[in-house]
Amino acid sequence: MKKLNVGVIGCGFMGRAHSNAFRTVTNFFDLPYQPILKTICARKGERARSFADKWGYESVETDWRKLVESPGVELIDIASPNDTHAEIAIAAAKAGKMVMCEKPLGRNPAESEAMVKAVEDAGVANMVWYNYRRVPAVMLAKQLMDEGRLGRIFHYRTVFLQDWTISQDVPQGGEALWRLDASVAGSGVTGDLLAHNIDTAMWLNGPIDEVTAMIETFIKSRKHTITGKEEPVRIDDASAFLARFQNGSLATFEATRYARGHKALYTFEINGEHASIIWDLHDLHRLQYFEHRDEGRLRGWRSIHITDGDHPYMKHWWVPGLQIGYEHSFIHQAADFLSGLDGGAAAAPTFREALLTDYVTDAVLQSAANRSWVKVRAG
Amino acid sequence: MKKLNVGVIGCGFMGRAHSNAFRTVTNFFDLPYQPILKTICARKGERARSFADKWGYESVETDWRKLVESPGVELIDIASPNDTHAEIAIAAAKAGKMVMCEKPLGRNPAESEAMVKAVEDAGVANMVWYNYRRVPAVMLAKQLMDEGRLGRIFHYRTVFLQDWTISQDVPQGGEALWRLDASVAGSGVTGDLLAHNIDTAMWLNGPIDEVTAMIETFIKSRKHTITGKEEPVRIDDASAFLARFQNGSLATFEATRYARGHKALYTFEINGEHASIIWDLHDLHRLQYFEHRDEGRLRGWRSIHITDGDHPYMKHWWVPGLQIGYEHSFIHQAADFLSGLDGGAAAAPTFREALLTDYVTDAVLQSAANRSWVKVRAG
Amino acid sequence: MKKLNVGVIGCGFMGRAHSNAFRTVTNFFDLPYQPILKTICARKGERARSFADKWGYESVETDWRKLVESPGVELIDIASPNDTHAEIAIAAAKAGKMVMCEKPLGRNPAESEAMVKAVEDAGVANMVWYNYRRVPAVMLAKQLMDEGRLGRIFHYRTVFLQDWTISQDVPQGGEALWRLDASVAGSGVTGDLLAHNIDTAMWLNGPIDEVTAMIETFIKSRKHTITGKEEPVRIDDASAFLARFQNGSLATFEATRYARGHKALYTFEINGEHASIIWDLHDLHRLQYFEHRDEGRLRGWRSIHITDGDHPYMKHWWVPGLQIGYEHSFIHQAADFLSGLDGGAAAAPTFREALLTDYVTDAVLQSAANRSWVKVRAG
Amino acid sequence: MKKLNVGVIGCGFMGRAHSNAFRTVTNFFDLPYQPILKTICARKGERARSFADKWGYESVETDWRKLVESPGVELIDIASPNDTHAEIAIAAAKAGKMVMCEKPLGRNPAESEAMVKAVEDAGVANMVWYNYRRVPAVMLAKQLMDEGRLGRIFHYRTVFLQDWTISQDVPQGGEALWRLDASVAGSGVTGDLLAHNIDTAMWLNGPIDEVTAMIETFIKSRKHTITGKEEPVRIDDASAFLARFQNGSLATFEATRYARGHKALYTFEINGEHASIIWDLHDLHRLQYFEHRDEGRLRGWRSIHITDGDHPYMKHWWVPGLQIGYEHSFIHQAADFLSGLDGGAAAAPTFREALLTDYVTDAVLQSAANRSWVKVRAG
Repeated sequence: MKKLNVGVIGCGFMGRAHSNAFRTVTNFFDLPYQPILKTICARKGERARSFADKWGYESVETDWRKLVESPGVELIDIASPNDTHAEIAIAAAKAGKMVMCEKPLGRNPAESEAMVKAVEDAGVANMVWYNYRRVPAVMLAKQLMDEGRLGRIFHYRTVFLQDWTISQDVPQGGEALWRLDASVAGSGVTGDLLAHNIDTAMWLNGPIDEVTAMIETFIKSRKHTITGKEEPVRIDDASAFLARFQNGSLATFEATRYARGHKALYTFEINGEHASIIWDLHDLHRLQYFEHRDEGRLRGWRSIHITDGDHPYMKHWWVPGLQIGYEHSFIHQAADFLSGLDGGAAAAPTFREALLTDYVTDAVLQSAANRSWVKVRAG
Repeated sequence: MKKLNVGVIGCGFMGRAHSNAFRTVTNFFDLPYQPILKTICARKGERARSFADKWGYESVETDWRKLVESPGVELIDIASPNDTHAEIAIAAAKAGKMVMCEKPLGRNPAESEAMVKAVEDAGVANMVWYNYRRVPAVMLAKQLMDEGRLGRIFHYRTVFLQDWTISQDVPQGGEALWRLDASVAGSGVTGDLLAHNIDTAMWLNGPIDEVTAMIETFIKSRKHTITGKEEPVRIDDASAFLARFQNGSLATFEATRYARGHKALYTFEINGEHASIIWDLHDLHRLQYFEHRDEGRLRGWRSIHITDGDHPYMKHWWVPGLQIGYEHSFIHQAADFLSGLDGGAAAAPTFREALLTDYVTDAVLQSAANRSWVKVRAG
Repeated sequence: MKKLNVGVIGCGFMGRAHSNAFRTVTNFFDLPYQPILKTICARKGERARSFADKWGYESVETDWRKLVESPGVELIDIASPNDTHAEIAIAAAKAGKMVMCEKPLGRNPAESEAMVKAVEDAGVANMVWYNYRRVPAVMLAKQLMDEGRLGRIFHYRTVFLQDWTISQDVPQGGEALWRLDASVAGSGVTGDLLAHNIDTAMWLNGPIDEVTAMIETFIKSRKHTITGKEEPVRIDDASAFLARFQNGSLATFEATRYARGHKALYTFEINGEHASIIWDLHDLHRLQYFEHRDEGRLRGWRSIHITDGDHPYMKHWWVPGLQIGYEHSFIHQAADFLSGLDGGAAAAPTFREALLTDYVTDAVLQSAANRSWVKVRAG
Repeated sequence: MKKLNVGVIGCGFMGRAHSNAFRTVTNFFDLPYQPILKTICARKGERARSFADKWGYESVETDWRKLVESPGVELIDIASPNDTHAEIAIAAAKAGKMVMCEKPLGRNPAESEAMVKAVEDAGVANMVWYNYRRVPAVMLAKQLMDEGRLGRIFHYRTVFLQDWTISQDVPQGGEALWRLDASVAGSGVTGDLLAHNIDTAMWLNGPIDEVTAMIETFIKSRKHTITGKEEPVRIDDASAFLARFQNGSLATFEATRYARGHKALYTFEINGEHASIIWDLHDLHRLQYFEHRDEGRLRGWRSIHITDGDHPYMKHWWVPGLQIGYEHSFIHQAADFLSGLDGGAAAAPTFREALLTDYVTDAVLQSAANRSWVKVRAG
């Protein structure tokens, strides 16, 4: 097993999820490469040091430019806020490093296109962390779609519902709350949540042709943690759109942080001629499946407990009946990336594929602004 | 359609359920007989009068002996408390009437045996209202068992959970609360609730061979509504037993009125070699079904919504997706009884079949008293 | 109890549901009026005769004009296809009869407005059968909304999913399939299914301000049962729209007959500042409720089994734990109508209130045609 | 953070689960000790070597006696089959090592008692891996019980259902299938599965007073993988018992490997005067909770998604809505053990506490043999 030296930028929520994936993946998967936690990079040295101790990083860096240039690092993993993605990724690619990037790619298509160009010009391996594709139940849905089990697709229906910003007392900006600051995040739930819905949807059901959308900001101003002042909120708190896929199916998409009672309720449902599928992040280890070809009086939605050895990824874990959790999706994505490095298939989504999601979120925001149907730019 | 004159005794909860069944059944089913609500009988004339007005009974009677002798009544339906079942049923049979009786048959096997003898000596049609057999989902379970779809049966698991007597303030005895008075009811949850579990279980899975049981009375004394005094509670508040069926399968049975949060949670589960079934009265219009012969990665418990035309009884009701409720089980039982009258199959359970349930409840009470395994008397 | 002579027009699915409601309502509710099933009216005499026998109608009529003029009938109930609603309702009102009408009111706002005018000019009692308001769980949702328990409302989310027309082999037109014939039905799922979603939504959450919609016809031509020829399908098979309510909340609506696995999955969800509600027609006797004011570590979606005496309408039925079904919603609506007749509150929705739903469905169809946001006409 | 050198014996299913716990625990928890994966011990050197590579063990050992004597190892963790537990644990204690042992403690009370004596005589830290106590939902149940939230307890109901041995083709014995060989395992589902049910039950609800049980071996002989011959099966395939707790509550327990459709369905339900709890291993990140003190019309079973920061252990993981899985229960148990080492509370269950579970399983097997109620030995 060859070593692969990794430098991770960012030690927040995603920095932990990625570190855990790199550190654990070879315990469960047989891979050509073992990731080595070489360097953790964060603006504040103390925070980086403490993180390095906790996760076993060999060294600490506070300037990402130095990390990117460091000869000892082969892979740059970007887990920092959205406004840093483009600059870092482009520099890393230019330095000849492999690049992994948290989603969304850039804050807007212009940034994202520059990032795609950079990694493709440099010819470096690249991937975006749309981790939900690697939840075993979601991967099983993909298998069923690819096998044509559902027949002609009529409907796609998906939401991502949260409730953590309902209170006026939640401030915006700063380390923990940059997702509420449009200058850092790019957009609100459209880029943060709907990007996941869109990535999965196009992966499963093909390109989206056109959309009509509405967005809303329910709480108009919040105290900014950096300026200390009450400032206008410029992100979208909620975003919903209707869409038509190229295959003729219809879709509804919705995301919000104002759905009381839901913490991270990412769900999707696909209705086909012969069968239908429902998945739900709050019970991510189950897939609901309806098979019209079952005997009539015994047809019913099957609640499939995705813990058997013949379910995607599951033979690497425990025994039937014993479920895995959220962080495993990152471990699976790391495994797929590493196993594809030596001439294998590139782990999807690459930057180029992820750019397509940004085209959709951009069309959504445009449509909401223009109050009209908007055609999605082709890849 | 011939008329069938019915006299109902008792105008409590069951009097209403039976009256509704008789009054409604021919609106939905094509039958050789139409029941006519001839006479309602209750001890208190005023109550009977009011009930007659509400349900359209032609006449009222306060003395069941007169009703039983009345030439204008062809069918006697007993919906009065348990301590009246034997006497009425025997008199009705002797008078040559058809007899329907609420469950359980008698308060003990001696009463029940006399009732069986009476209806068989008289050669009159007879039936006991174990209504849950006619819930469409339960009837579908019966079809699957009879077809051998489950293969060899290993386990039967059933409970009936309520919580309405937890408070010390609930009194015992009298019109509404005779179920807490052992002299009227015979026993507590064993005869009131477990009788349902046992009836369904033997119908689906065959005879029970032996049992070991425990019972408990959590609240030892309650005010009696008739005497006005605090008196010992002599019924069982909770009853549980292990059993072995003649087919070699094992079972657990449990009923209680002290299961906080459950109102009438009658459930059963059957595990067979090839398939399993779960049903639950709180969602009575669904059957859970697991089919091991399904493709491995797509196996899951199917939640079958029992509202299609090919589900038992359902073509008589609405359209797919639209559920029916509790009282429909009585309507179905009435339909089966009426359609079997002219030389068709007698509607089960007859008195003789229902007696077998009493043998089991009797063995349960004996076992609890003796702290030993008890063999169930054969039919 | 006074008698109220009812003439019902139509003996299909809705004719049965209404007949059952009229025939049964006084068995369970104490009311000032008892409906008498006076006359059933259907174009084919034989069919009407057979229906009259089954339900106990006193007489039969094949010409609705004669029924409407009949002095023996006080209430005309319209349960015939949509293309007959306006003409009958207007004639009945002119004849001074009370009028009940199946939903939707007319095939388009012009018809509906004429109907409203007719009943208001005549000053006759009137009501539209949007029966789902009277499902006890839905009525409980209404209580919670009216009490302000949810606080500010952010989101409304509703679908009505069926799958019965997926096959190309399903023909259009004629007695059973007039819902697929645009000239009879007016529209497809927009008027047939979304009308229910919209009625409930505005009743619970107030007026809808504007919409943007898309519709689709997946199967473009079907054999017509009357002409015998393959003819274009002119109804909408699927319809979805985004909406803004006047209270500032956002909504998504969707209906289809191409959602494999769903028979009549009418669901709605409301997210408020303090609490949220979910309801689902496939388990209509439950309400899901999330209360943010519960203690933090014990917050969870409550699955409320709507069978207790303090739940709307339920004290009229059985005992806790025992569920009712679909047809009970019609019985409740009949009860409310009858109890409001003598100076009580008119049972909602009246024709005038139901017209508002037609304004929304009309805006939906316009928006889908124009590919633009459309403002809903005010009431 | 001090280092703690660990030697693990056994590299099967449990060897992996423990190794993962030791290797990961300090990434997520702040602890006084960091476990170091010093030595893995297994009978076959090649297997141990491969396991060491995968998990990063520093060295390999094939003779557990040498490991136990090794001065470089401070903690011996026993993850080998049941027939090795007693001998290893006693030797390790004598050598002054801390000892962790997979459940059940010994194959019978005599072995277990000797183990308790050994660790207590040596005064070494000790713990048994009854991991399910540390599932966050189960720990929340413990908090609620300890706070008296449920009031007087009436019922405890628990099962552990699997289906992996239904086929006659499954052999017995050897590395993977020693659980079917009585000489290695001690008993069948009673020691393997019910031990979990019993441990949790007594931890939550106090001592069990007496039991009456039945056991069954459905498949009487199986091929033995070591001898190659068809040999009698001497373990119990299924085991069920009734019990009375010292606090007066009643219980049913059942475990089987013949419940088609269930893989590892460990569930428990507790009914108290004021509230009830249900938990289920197949959705381990949820707790069902019914609170009778809620407002009447809004009472319902709450499905609590155990992913918030105020739920036990969860602040160490991700963000609300994101679930963890099976292996985390081991990580939590390791964290509790390590944090209790320096004068803190010993992590339960110690060997002494786990012995009480063996007394119950022993009483169960005796009762099944004698067909009588058996009093459980006191601790």
